Parts: sequence; C-alpha cells; structure tokens
Amino acid sequence: MRFSTVTIRYVLVSLWYVNRIKKIRLYGSFSKNRIFVAGLLRVVKMKLAIAQLDYTIGDFDANKTKIINAVERAKGDGADLVVFAEEAICGVPAYDLLNRVNFLNMCEETLLEVASHCHGIAALVGVPVQENGWTVSAAAFIRDGKVRSHVTRRYVIQRDDASFIYPGCGCGAVEVNGHRIAVVVGEDVMCPDQYSGFADTIVNVGSSKYARQRIEKRYDFLGNVAYRSGANVVFVNQIGGNTDVIYDGSSAVFDAKGRPVALLASFKEDYRVIDLSVDNAPLELPYQDKTRNVYNAIKLGLKDFFVKNGYTKACLGLSGGIDSAVVAALAVEVLGAENVRVLLMPSQFSSDHSVEDAMHMVRILGMQYDVVHITDIYKSVMDNMSDVFAGHDKFGVTEENIQARIRGMLLMALSNKFGHILLNTSNKSELALGMGTLYGDNAGMLSLIGDVYKGEVYDIARYINRNGEIIPENILLKAPSAELRPEQKDTDYLPAYDVTDSILYRMIEEGQSREEIINAGFDADVVHKIYGMILKNEQKRYQFCPVLRVSTCTFGKLRVMPITSKYGF
Amino acid sequence: MRFSTVTIRYVLVSLWYVNRIKKIRLYGSFSKNRIFVAGLLRVVKMKLAIAQLDYTIGDFDANKTKIINAVERAKGDGADLVVFAEEAICGVPAYDLLNRVNFLNMCEETLLEVASHCHGIAALVGVPVQENGWTVSAAAFIRDGKVRSHVTRRYVIQRDDASFIYPGCGCGAVEVNGHRIAVVVGEDVMCPDQYSGFADTIVNVGSSKYARQRIEKRYDFLGNVAYRSGANVVFVNQIGGNTDVIYDGSSAVFDAKGRPVALLASFKEDYRVIDLSVDNAPLELPYQDKTRNVYNAIKLGLKDFFVKNGYTKACLGLSGGIDSAVVAALAVEVLGAENVRVLLMPSQFSSDHSVEDAMHMVRILGMQYDVVHITDIYKSVMDNMSDVFAGHDKFGVTEENIQARIRGMLLMALSNKFGHILLNTSNKSELALGMGTLYGDNAGMLSLIGDVYKGEVYDIARYINRNGEIIPENILLKAPSAELRPEQKDTDYLPAYDVTDSILYRMIEEGQSREEIINAGFDADVVHKIYGMILKNEQKRYQFCPVLRVSTCTFGKLRVMPITSKYGF
Repeated sequence: MRFSTVTIRYVLVSLWYVNRIKKIRLYGSFSKNRIFVAGLLRVVKMKLAIAQLDYTIGDFDANKTKIINAVERAKGDGADLVVFAEEAICGVPAYDLLNRVNFLNMCEETLLEVASHCHGIAALVGVPVQENGWTVSAAAFIRDGKVRSHVTRRYVIQRDDASFIYPGCGCGAVEVNGHRIAVVVGEDVMCPDQYSGFADTIVNVGSSKYARQRIEKRYDFLGNVAYRSGANVVFVNQIGGNTDVIYDGSSAVFDAKGRPVALLASFKEDYRVIDLSVDNAPLELPYQDKTRNVYNAIKLGLKDFFVKNGYTKACLGLSGGIDSAVVAALAVEVLGAENVRVLLMPSQFSSDHSVEDAMHMVRILGMQYDVVHITDIYKSVMDNMSDVFAGHDKFGVTEENIQARIRGMLLMALSNKFGHILLNTSNKSELALGMGTLYGDNAGMLSLIGDVYKGEVYDIARYINRNGEIIPENILLKAPSAELRPEQKDTDYLPAYDVTDSILYRMIEEGQSREEIINAGFDADVVHKIYGMILKNEQKRYQFCPVLRVSTCTFGKLRVMPITSKYGF
Repeated sequence: MRFSTVTIRYVLVSLWYVNRIKKIRLYGSFSKNRIFVAGLLRVVKMKLAIAQLDYTIGDFDANKTKIINAVERAKGDGADLVVFAEEAICGVPAYDLLNRVNFLNMCEETLLEVASHCHGIAALVGVPVQENGWTVSAAAFIRDGKVRSHVTRRYVIQRDDASFIYPGCGCGAVEVNGHRIAVVVGEDVMCPDQYSGFADTIVNVGSSKYARQRIEKRYDFLGNVAYRSGANVVFVNQIGGNTDVIYDGSSAVFDAKGRPVALLASFKEDYRVIDLSVDNAPLELPYQDKTRNVYNAIKLGLKDFFVKNGYTKACLGLSGGIDSAVVAALAVEVLGAENVRVLLMPSQFSSDHSVEDAMHMVRILGMQYDVVHITDIYKSVMDNMSDVFAGHDKFGVTEENIQARIRGMLLMALSNKFGHILLNTSNKSELALGMGTLYGDNAGMLSLIGDVYKGEVYDIARYINRNGEIIPENILLKAPSAELRPEQKDTDYLPAYDVTDSILYRMIEEGQSREEIINAGFDADVVHKIYGMILKNEQKRYQFCPVLRVSTCTFGKLRVMPITSKYGF
C-alpha cells in the first residue's frame, strides 16, 4: 500500500480539521487497499437554538412578538437554526378555530412576518396550514427570509386534535448548513421507524401536554430514540396553560448516544442554544417529584387562565376543609392575597372548628373575607317550598343540596358583583363518586384539583406547608366531612379516603375490572358500590367546569362516557 | 350469419329464463358475427331484509333480543340477507367504552350469539372489534351460523368517533347467493371511488345522525351513488336517541338507476324486505318539512333519554314565555301530562300576563303545577349579602342572576325531592348570546331546544298548535322578555329576534365573517355586538347540559371553541 505526497498532505489537513472542529463528514469509499476520498470534506457546524415559549390561542400579535424576539436573540447567539413548538403561531389547542378560514389566514400572515425576520438564520415554526381543503399541523421551514417548505403531522390521535386536525404526510427532511435534519411534528415522534435513519439530527416540533409522570417517560423515550437511531434528538415543547390544558415545556436535546445534553425548564418559559457540532457534556436527568410537578402544573394552569383571559381576582368558598384550603393557598400563591376573596358560609350543621380553621387560614394568608350565614336563606327556601314538599318533609339529599346550592348562588353573586372568578374546589375522588352538588359546590369557572384524588390533595397541602404553616395543621388532621347534615362524616358510606382512592385509581386510571380489584383484596361490596357511583354520576360531570389536567384520564375531556348507557360490566 | 340448432335452442332457453326470473347474468363475449356463451347462466335471487332498530348503549341483552327477533322475522320472510346498522350490537356513540376490554368482549359474545341464530340466512351486523390493539368499527358478515369476515371502516372523521374509533381497512365484498355485495361501513359511503364498480349491490351499514336537511341530502347522495355506479344501494341506519345524539333512521334502497325503491320510516323503528332480483317500482321521495322533522327529532331524543335512562317524570319552570311553553308541550306529548310537573316562580318583575299565560297553559295541558313566589327568598339573599354588597347595591346583572339562580335552585329541589328530571328551556339564540344565567335558567339535565333558534321555536310552537290551541295564542303574540328587571324586553339591547337570528345563523351555521354579514346589509354595530357576545360566552356554554342535536354545529359537541382565546377576527 503506497500513498502519494498529495494524499498524505490531504489526510493530515483532514486530521487537523477533525481535531479542531470535532465533527466532519467523509464523502468517499474504501476499496481493497486504497482510500479514495471522492467528495469534499464538509464542515458541519450546527448551532441550534430552542425557544420554549408560552403562546396564547389566537393572540397573533403577542405570539409573533415572542417568536421574533427569540429569532433575534438566536441570531445574536450565532445560531444556525431556531426551533419553536407545534402551532406556536396560533397557540394550541385551538379546536374549531382551526377550521375557520380567517384564523388560518391570520396564521399564514403571521408566519410570513416571522419569516421576514429570519435572514441569516433558519427557523422551524409550528403552524396549522390547509392542504387540499383540510387543516393539517405543520412545521414551516424558513430560510433566507422565506418559507421554504412545510413538514406536516401524520398521526392525529389525541382527543384535542382528532377531528380538528387532519392527517398530513408525516415527517420530512430539511438541510441547514449542509446538516441534514429530520423534522417530526407532534406525536409523529412516537413512530421512530417513520423518521429515524436518514439524518444525524431529529427535530421534534412538539406540543406534549403534562400528565403525571409524563416528563420522565418522555425523556426516557427521546433518549431511546436518539440511542437507537444514532442521531441527536431535539424536542421542543409548548409551555403554558390554555384553559384546562397544561404544557410543561421540558424541551430537551439528547445526543447520538442517547444522553441528555440540554434540558430546558419545566413549567416555565426557557431558551437555550446548543452547538451540535461539538461533544456536549451529558447531564443528569433531574428527579421528578410527583407532588411538586402536579403542584407546579396547577399553578401554571391557574396563572395562565387568569393572565390570558385578562382576569386578576378570584373568589372561593372556604369551608374549613382540606380542598378549599389547598385551592385558597394555590390562588394566593399565584394571584396574591390581595386578589383572593373568600366567603365563609356556615350553616347550622357546620362545626365550630370549621369556621375557626377557615378563619385561621384567612389570617395566615391575609385574604379578604366575609362570613355569610346561610341558615336564614335556607329557612326562607324551605318555607316557600313547604306547599310543594308537603308530606315529604323528611330531611334528606334535597335539603343537603339546597344548602350547597345556596352557597353556590352566593359565590356567584360575589363573582358577578365584583368580577372575581369563582374557583371550584372539588377533587377527583368527589367528582368520580358524584359527592358534590350540581350548581352547588360543583360551581366555578375553573377546577384546580378536579384531576387530583383526595389523598393527593393532602400531599399537595403538605408540600404547600413545606416551609411553614400555610394550611392550618388542624385541617390536615381532622376527618373530612361535607357537613350538610348533623355529624356527617365522609366515612359514613365509604371506607377511609385512602382505600377509596386506591379503588378509584384502579378503576379510572388503570381501567381495571371490578373482578380484578376484588381479587387484589378489596372488599367486594365496597368495590361494587364505588363502581355504581362512578357510573351513575356521568351526568353531573358533564356539566362540570374545565378541570386542569394532570392525568391521562381527566373527567370530561380525556375520559368521555355516554350518559345514556346500560353498560355495567 | 348462421346459427346452429343448438345455439338457437340455447338462446330460446335463455329468453325463457329472462322472462321468468327477470334477472340473469350472461357470462360471454360477442365476436364479429358469432355469439359465444362461454360461461353458465346463473340465477341471482336476492331477497334482502332491513332492520332499522333503536339500540341502547351497553344494553347487550336488549340489543341482542331485538336483533335476533329481526333475524327470525327475516327468515320467515324468506330473506337471503338481513342487514343491521353500524354498531348495532352495542349502541352508538359509546365513546370511551369502545376502548374497554370488557365492553369489546361483551360485543363479541353478543355477536356470536346472534350468529348462532343465523342458519339459513346471512346477516351483516355492525359491531366494534379490535384490530392490532385498536378498536375499529366493523360490519360482521354472518353465514351458516358463523361469523365469516369483518369489513371495517376506514374514514373516521366525525367528532363522536374520532379518537375513540381507529381507521380500519375500508370496504370489502361478501357473497350471498352468488350475488356479490360491496359492504361499506359508516361514513366510508362518502367516498364512492373506494367501493363502487365491483359489485351489483352496495350495502351501507350506517349510523348517520339527524341534522336539519340531512335526510334529503342523504337520499340525494345515495341515489347519485346508485346511478353512477349502476348498482343497488342499500342504506341501513340507526334510529333513536342517545343522550344528545339523534339518529333518524330513514334507511333506504335505491336501484341501479338511482331511483328509490324502499324508504323506511324516519324517527321510528322499521323493517322492510325487498327483492333485489326483480324490478321494483320506483317511489316518490316524501317532502321533508323542516319544522316537522326537527319536532319529531326532539320528541324522539326526549323519549329515548327518558326510556333508556329509566326516567318517567319531568319538571320544568313555566315562565309564561314561548321557550318553556314549547318544552312543556313537547314533554306532555312524549311523557304524558301526568308525568310533567311545572313550577311557576313569579318575582316582583313578572308581568301579570306571564302568570296568566302560564296558568292558561297548565289548564290546557292538565299538568301538575305549583306557584312559588321567589320574592321572599330573593329578599333573604339580599339581606344576608348586604354586608358583602355594601356600597355596591345598585340593581344590576348580579341581582338579575340571583333571581334566575333561585329559580334554578327551586327546580333542582323539586327534582331531588320527587325524582323529576329537570328539562332545560334555553334556545340556541340565548345560548349563542349568553343571555341565560349559569346555574339559573341554564340548569337542567337535557336541553330540548338548545339547538333551535328563537324563530324556529315559534315555528315549532305553531306546529304544535296545528290541530288546536295547546300553546296559548298570547304567548305566541307577545314580545319576548326575561322579566328580570322592570319593563325588560329582549329588544332592549338587540334587534328583534328575526334579525338577530339571521345574523347568528350566518355566523354559527354558515361560518360567515363579520365583513360578509355587514356587506349583506346588516347593521355593523349590531353585527360586532353579537359577535362579541358569542365569543365571550364560551365559558357558560362549556357547563351547559347535553343539547339534543338537530344541526351540524350544536354548541358543546359539534362546535368546540377554546375558552382561553384572544381570537376575534
């Protein structure tokens, strides 16, 4: 084997390059005993910026400004490519707005304006577009100030997208600085065989919602894709709350060995530049504390519900129980004590400690409060209904519900008079079992803990108290009660909440059959009773307000059951 | 040109056959001056039975009994094939039940039992099945007592199906009596290029919901498909109400010339046998009266909501206005006067004629009624809230809403006490504009006229009165008013309902932009005001009860808008 001087010089220059820029591409082939270097050596420099931003649905001006600012910042940082989340232009989920011509026109106009700022930098921006009269979710590829191509999403499975967005062609490739990039929109990332293997970087223009334990699962999945396809994986997510939907952000970059090399913040906006042409030091994946994550998700959802809708003030009924205590504490943390107003509405069945505990909390948090006894109003209702109820005046569910509905009415009156947004205080266990009163304690514009089981409400309460007492200890210790009749306890009909929660969790989150749950050692009668209660209360849940979603089976949106149904197996 | 004796004898026999059985298939080819009859003459006898039945979701026993009874009847009628609707086995739409293993197992068991009754007859039965772990909607083809094959649905576009049902492979063919039949499930029928051309009969195992003018459009479409593909088209539909969804039935058969030869009943169960091997006399398509159809659809929806949920008694608030009058009349027609109980709840703002008109109606219909004045309760609420409202005691929206919520509370109390199901009385115009009070007049378990504009409510009222006064003439003549403040009229803020309705219809049903509507001659200020009101009230509609659907854009289900949105173009 002999080499000419030219060849040797060429190889030396190559090695120097390798040393300096760490990454080159060799275009050539090896044959028997000679090395042909057929192509040119090309330097693959690739600085990528990730903009993880909180967009508002339909607020094209604000979204545009955020996007353009990030483009300018990325330019300043010398990035070659800046990536934004799916449907960054318009916010997500936009539901039927996606099928309005005006809305799509605004998307296009905004995109073109963004593009006009992309000189000297390439960009990938999520935007819905029309293809053959159907709206598809695309990533627009922008270079030299122009939109060059669209990569569209193929798999439209999620409930908030299906029937609003139509399937596109799936992933495609773009080239930046001679670097071939596979672009994957949204959940198409779940099908790696569709996109891996033909590029050394995979960019997922995503919008993945928060759910318990989803952040760690997502990291796991993306790391795996990177490792198995031997490519960098860049995941750019939405962040922010849109009514009930919460995006956690947690954008990330995994290198070709499947190691995390960039991890953006969870539950807040973030921005990062990473040079994919150098070896990046691998990071440790942070521990995902379940309670802390749910707590942060709810805070984000609450904050954005208020900010994006232009609300500032909230109100709620403070009963002295755990649920309203947690909601009040969350509201004060997010909105400030000066913006949270509570009503204490004791009846003849309220225990003294309820009012004391609620007052204790009012003092700790410094919220504006009023005490309105509902006994008079209740009496007035009963007096005026006496003819209607004649002969049926035994105290029962009707009378319990009347109390709850008087409270709902008073809270709505406060809300109407002063513009405070009523926060609902029901938890997921109550919703499952139908323990709340429709138009009573089920009232509200947003449910903060409607996707959180009773036991988890206690977890959050303890987390809130981590640096000192905010929720009075007595509220955490006493037995839960609706206090709608004398000496009522939540355990009058059902076992303690931890047992009930376990059964509910198996039925709702894990879809286990009654047989399976009974075989796991739970009392058969209780299991059947709980099952019956869940089935029976679909009707109540149908009219419930939006619930901040922290699971994969939030009532109303992610778990939809027919009201009229004889199914019971 | 010469014919041998054998040939002539063959042709004569053929002609005799043609004369006797009207339909034969000639397998052969014509060449220059000779006729070769290469194949065999085959007699295609084909008697088909259509079973248009009202199924209940998850009521496998009842559905099975209905199906088996129809199989037996079809056998008795000498049918070769009996066809049932899509998802006949389990009822539709079953939403997330479709993804429960137990539910699918029950579907399969029920199907096998149905199959065991199908000796001497073939059957096509709609049933959800699992394919590679995904639930798809199939038509099971049964012959000789066994399930022979499944044809699955490919296009899953409708909102009640998307994300619950997954796309299958699309249409397939089965053979009955040597007759080749293309089987098309559900909306796959909308893509004729996928299935026409390879069979002489097309059977659509369907589940097409009612919406205004859909019956005539469906007939039109099916006739066209038949004509263009030169095949018989058999459409078998679901009939019945499942909560808010209404299937109108209207199954039909069109011959190869596109002429209707069998038309099954609309809005009720029906059964028909048709011999496809003879020429059937074409029928006249009946005139589709819009008001009568909407009226029948609502009656069916109401009836099935009660029957299928095991309810018998209804209640509502009778204000003396047109909306509650129409709802009361519908309820009495469907449930009987003995099962409808009304509350008259006048306040100090109620006009005398309101109570008189309501009482007049009570007397005409003979419903049980109570009069409960709400003034005392209202005073009690205001007294107890006086500290909270101090300095803000000007009468306004808050005070109006309190009245409406007291009424809601009393109706729910009546409902809780005696088990009457509260019927909501809001119309679509009110819902669009947000004129109702959340938890007040927006309360109820089912909305009968929430998909019907104010003007159409009058149409229905006149239709109800077609054979004599049921709704007092005065209710039809007087100006509408919510009567929540002195001398209030609906026209205080907006033009007369016919103008408002026109604008709403253009915005909601036709998706016109404001510019387009203004250009059509409507007052710009009014158009902008109405547009703003629609946008602002998404939040209220979110918590509204199920609305019987009679359009393609029913609020809540068929028109889904984000609550948190800055979109306003």
